[in-house]
Amino acid sequence: MDIDPTVTRAVLDAVDEQRIVALLSDLIAVPSLSGDETAGQQQVSELLAATGVDVTRWEIDVDALSHHDWYSAEVDRSAALGVLATYGADDGPALLLNGHVDVVPPGTPSDWTTPPFEPVVRDGRVHGRGACDMKGGLAAALHALEVLVALDVPLAGQVSLASVVGEEDGGCGTLALLDRGVRADGCIIMEPTALAVVPAVAGALSWRIRVRGLSAHGCLREEGVSAIEAFFGVHRAVIELERRRNAAVDDPLFDWLDRPFAICGGRIAGGDWPSSEADWLVWEGRYGVAPGEDLHAARGMFESAVAAAAADDPWLSTHPPTVEWWGGQFYPGRTSPDADIVSAVRSAATQVTGAAPPLRGMPYGCDLGLTTNLGGIPTVVFGPGDVRDAHRPDESVPIADLAVVARTIALTGLRFCGLAGGA
Amino acid sequence: MDIDPTVTRAVLDAVDEQRIVALLSDLIAVPSLSGDETAGQQQVSELLAATGVDVTRWEIDVDALSHHDWYSAEVDRSAALGVLATYGADDGPALLLNGHVDVVPPGTPSDWTTPPFEPVVRDGRVHGRGACDMKGGLAAALHALEVLVALDVPLAGQVSLASVVGEEDGGCGTLALLDRGVRADGCIIMEPTALAVVPAVAGALSWRIRVRGLSAHGCLREEGVSAIEAFFGVHRAVIELERRRNAAVDDPLFDWLDRPFAICGGRIAGGDWPSSEADWLVWEGRYGVAPGEDLHAARGMFESAVAAAAADDPWLSTHPPTVEWWGGQFYPGRTSPDADIVSAVRSAATQVTGAAPPLRGMPYGCDLGLTTNLGGIPTVVFGPGDVRDAHRPDESVPIADLAVVARTIALTGLRFCGLAGGA
Repeated sequence: MDIDPTVTRAVLDAVDEQRIVALLSDLIAVPSLSGDETAGQQQVSELLAATGVDVTRWEIDVDALSHHDWYSAEVDRSAALGVLATYGADDGPALLLNGHVDVVPPGTPSDWTTPPFEPVVRDGRVHGRGACDMKGGLAAALHALEVLVALDVPLAGQVSLASVVGEEDGGCGTLALLDRGVRADGCIIMEPTALAVVPAVAGALSWRIRVRGLSAHGCLREEGVSAIEAFFGVHRAVIELERRRNAAVDDPLFDWLDRPFAICGGRIAGGDWPSSEADWLVWEGRYGVAPGEDLHAARGMFESAVAAAAADDPWLSTHPPTVEWWGGQFYPGRTSPDADIVSAVRSAATQVTGAAPPLRGMPYGCDLGLTTNLGGIPTVVFGPGDVRDAHRPDESVPIADLAVVARTIALTGLRFCGLAGGA
Repeated sequence: MDIDPTVTRAVLDAVDEQRIVALLSDLIAVPSLSGDETAGQQQVSELLAATGVDVTRWEIDVDALSHHDWYSAEVDRSAALGVLATYGADDGPALLLNGHVDVVPPGTPSDWTTPPFEPVVRDGRVHGRGACDMKGGLAAALHALEVLVALDVPLAGQVSLASVVGEEDGGCGTLALLDRGVRADGCIIMEPTALAVVPAVAGALSWRIRVRGLSAHGCLREEGVSAIEAFFGVHRAVIELERRRNAAVDDPLFDWLDRPFAICGGRIAGGDWPSSEADWLVWEGRYGVAPGEDLHAARGMFESAVAAAAADDPWLSTHPPTVEWWGGQFYPGRTSPDADIVSAVRSAATQVTGAAPPLRGMPYGCDLGLTTNLGGIPTVVFGPGDVRDAHRPDESVPIADLAVVARTIALTGLRFCGLAGGA
């Protein structure tokens, strides 16, 4: 939709980089770790209410939600809030902005240059836990809404902003939102994409493999079976599966990655006694799955690879390892690159930055899997910062990205939702 | 020394299998886990005192002892008791009986048929934690002493019984005994040998290898380095070292074993996040060393094998794994098979059982490493039960073995220490 250039100009000009930095700093200063997001959600709902939009806040019935077919979570969550702000009318397409408030633990505090929950601006970046993943995107969207409201832009359709919990451990917050019936004609999730426009994301399924051994005193270890040695064949099979699956990828959106659907087993533990042969080993990780892939079939492929490795081993063939799917089960998802929301975000970003942003698939799982597959909402991920800076010490986001995202969202809001009376 | 056959007969006849079972059951019922052995030591000293022998009990200054060159331990031990009972005179060779009261943790209680600290007689065996390792041997020795005292046998030399702590985690109890100046002309340690006469034992050195990786989000794991994958080459090198060392063994005492000096790495842990590339891994185990082997050289051989594996790896060559020697450092030890104490135990056991017992080296480390190398005491290990039944659920010891050991020890006491006036 063509928008009066003066409105566009006013909106773009009203975006205030320093205001986003201030909002983001406030958000970082309230630690909203997975499972403990209530203070963070209260803060976001208060910031939204202060802009003058309508804000709905509700207690999520986590216990009831946990019976949903699409539910997954890794942390205990006794309480959870839903927050949804809306602005605009019902006479045009509805745009949903989705951001999560939960952050992953900061790890070892001494690995940080400055404390994780004390936001600092340094080298043109805001530093702190969640700066990149994804309070930066949330602050940018919040500010975009703030600008539209402050200018009293008469949107024909509705822009809403959902602040959700539980993205990092499986997406229960967005599930609760969809379960409540919230839908839209397009959705932007402000996860870090380094300003690429992302209509497709991988899925990520958390797994746990248990390998058994047979205990024996270390001095007579030939009478036992080392679960650590038995594990090697299982590991080899899993890595070979990763190679095979990634070699077969034929999706231009993922061409920019060597290994878009990685299998990463990042945690291992086995044995109770250094001087006894280990009689157990647990290996845990994530299994990248492609958009469009059937999850049941994908899980079966993984289980078969483990089973085939076991069948080749004298011990494991009679003591097969088990595969368990636990914790976060992130659905992959894809929106057609031709969908209106994708074009809207691309053209807005092009106008804001002066160059067409890359169109890419992302190798991580996020709430797009839920909004597209369960919600049926065409969704694009677009946000500030690089995912490489997430989930690590000294997490940070470039301030320049924050302003680009706020402007792109505000402009997308104007164009996607339109102005009342076609103004 | 020839002993009056009536005395011998009286001693052998006085050994009461049921009394040993009762003593052993009492000992099992007092859990004396490594680091928490005080109640167990009090119990043993009371049982000894009740026989009428002289008992010395003293507080071990653990802090002072911890500076001793030969000290090693794995558990915190704020208090520790030494217990030494003596019987006999100073006119003949002195025999020291050495038994440890500490037991390893029972593991998962549900893995036990009956509770670990509730002794039960079943199938001709006493069951419970410590039955085999080594309260069975301790009870048999205690009863042997009890019989000598009850019969008022006039020994020319002294038989003493040391009940020690800390054997399982490095031998600090026997170290305290030797540090106190206790010596003898011969020593029997009643560890489980399945009634073999054992003049040599392997050493066992506890090690910890740390492997570093480089963390990365699991979805972009090619930007990190998996400490788990880096570990494989280190593991291969260690197992190859084990093969090479054992292939070179040329000691008839250890012929009965395929792999007398095993390297067993029984505990592993790595990575904090299943969906991030693991940036650390710790592998812990024990390194079997041969009697007579220089420990410094042996450690160097192990460290070199790890270093050589690292040198072959692009990542590890610049981020080398570290090797740490921690916890129990069990010295190997050997007494000449021709030593008086070896002959005395062999001939006594032959008389008791009617057949010559096998002469063997044992693949486990025990306090013989301290009594021989540091104490200079010719030592033999001889005890009831099979080490395969130790350190596991449903630990047990054959009752028949208990009586054989009590009789063999009593008879060895008569012959090794002699009778006053050559009676």
